[in-house]
Amino acid sequence: MNRAVLIVSVIAITLLIACNNNKNQENMNEQNNNSLYPKGDKLSNEWFSGNAFLTPLIVKDKNNEFSAGSVTFEPGARTNWHTHPKGQVLLVIEGNGFYQEKGKSAQPIKKGDVINIPENTEHWHGATATTKMVHIAITNYKDDEQVTWLQAVTDDEFTEANKTTN
Amino acid sequence: MNRAVLIVSVIAITLLIACNNNKNQENMNEQNNNSLYPKGDKLSNEWFSGNAFLTPLIVKDKNNEFSAGSVTFEPGARTNWHTHPKGQVLLVIEGNGFYQEKGKSAQPIKKGDVINIPENTEHWHGATATTKMVHIAITNYKDDEQVTWLQAVTDDEFTEANKTTN
Repeated sequence: MNRAVLIVSVIAITLLIACNNNKNQENMNEQNNNSLYPKGDKLSNEWFSGNAFLTPLIVKDKNNEFSAGSVTFEPGARTNWHTHPKGQVLLVIEGNGFYQEKGKSAQPIKKGDVINIPENTEHWHGATATTKMVHIAITNYKDDEQVTWLQAVTDDEFTEANKTTN
Repeated sequence: MNRAVLIVSVIAITLLIACNNNKNQENMNEQNNNSLYPKGDKLSNEWFSGNAFLTPLIVKDKNNEFSAGSVTFEPGARTNWHTHPKGQVLLVIEGNGFYQEKGKSAQPIKKGDVINIPENTEHWHGATATTKMVHIAITNYKDDEQVTWLQAVTDDEFTEANKTTN
C-alpha cells in the first residue's frame, strides 16, 4: 500500500511541478514578447527624472515633419516640465503612467490611450511610482525646434499626481 | 491500499486539471490583452482585398500634418496598389505580413518593424495568406491629399509574395 501511494504521489507531484514550470516559462516568454521595441538608450537626467530610455523609430525627413520614438519610463521616471512648439502625440503602448498639464490635475494614462498634446502647453509625462509605462512619441517640428525643456517635476508634484486614481 | 491510492490519484488529477485550466485562462486573457487597439470598422473592398479594419487614432489638425490609425489585416487581406504624395510610416504592432513596391520583391514585415514609405511610390501592404497583421499607419498630407488608390493586388501577385520567406 505504502509503495503504491508513494509512486502515485511522486508521479502527481512531478506532473504538477512540470505544469507550473511550463506556465511560468510561458509567462516569461510572454513578458519578453510583449515589448514592441527594445528599451534603447538611457535618457539624460538633465531632462528626465529617474530611469527613462529611448529607441528612435523615425527621424525628421523631407516627408515626415516629426520624429518618432519609443520611450520607456521605469517606475518613478518622468520627463521634466516642457513644451513643444507644434505639439506632440503620445501612443501609450505598455503599462500605466501620468500626463499632466500645468494648472490641471494629473491624468492617468494607460496602454491603448492616445494623447494629442497642444503646442506651447507646459506639461510632463511618465510612469507611476510603482508601474512602468512605454509610449510612442510623435513630436512635430516647427522649423528645427521640437521641444523646450523646463524644470524637473519635483517629488512633491509627482507624489501629488500619484494620488490621482480615476 | 486501493482507497489511499484512489484518494491520492483523485487529488492529483484535480490539481492537474486546475493547473491546466488556469494556464488556458491566462492564455486567453493574454490574447485579449495583446491587441493594442480595437479592430474598428471594416474597410471598403473598393481599396482593400479581404477583411481589413481601421481604428482611427489621430486626425489631421493644425499641428499634426498627418492622420494616424491602426489597421488590422485578417489573413489574406491587403491594400490595393496605391501611392502617397508625401509618404507614410508603418509601425507593425502585431503579426506578420508583407510590404511590396512595384518592380521589387515583397518584403516580409513583422511586429516591431518600421517602414518609411517614400512619396509617389506604388506599393501595397497586408497580412500573409495565413497570419494576420496589424500596423499603425502615419500618413502625411500634401495639402488635402494623402493617397491615390490604384488596382487591387491580384491573387497571383499575392501568392507570389507569399513565397517570400526571408
